Amino acid sequence: EWSIEKGVENCLSRVFVFKNFAQALQFTNQVGAVAESEGHHPLLITEWGRVTVKWWTHKIGGLHKTDFIMAARTDKLV
Amino acid sequence: EWSIEKGVENCLSRVFVFKNFAQALQFTNQVGAVAESEGHHPLLITEWGRVTVKWWTHKIGGLHKTDFIMAARTDKLV
Repeated sequence: EWSIEKGVENCLSRVFVFKNFAQALQFTNQVGAVAESEGHHPLLITEWGRVTVKWWTHKIGGLHKTDFIMAARTDKLV
Repeated sequence: EWSIEKGVENCLSRVFVFKNFAQALQFTNQVGAVAESEGHHPLLITEWGRVTVKWWTHKIGGLHKTDFIMAARTDKLV
């Protein structure tokens, strides 16, 4: 369910749905922990009941194999 | 430094800058804790080195006094 979002820098984007704000924020922290452990960081939009995760590699201005790996790791957190 | 962002639902928006991803995520959690305590939730965009906070009241489709109060409380967290 990841989609490639075209932009100045293309990214992989996916929305994850939760029951409330607290669960969404918890997921944001889980993704953040994986990001810190890998030294590769996403953009995370946390709202009531959902988190949007976007992975891309700023250094190359778009998508790298790492981003697809991080997307797969993100899915495993759900 | 809050600005009113015009859209389908107007909101108060501000960007907070940090040294790295961990500090940005920490701030997201601090704002999230205040949000939970008040039962009023923002949209939080967490990135490496910055967090964008947006407050608005979905029920009225725009800005309420509460949003300005929450913006002021957000500033106090920095």
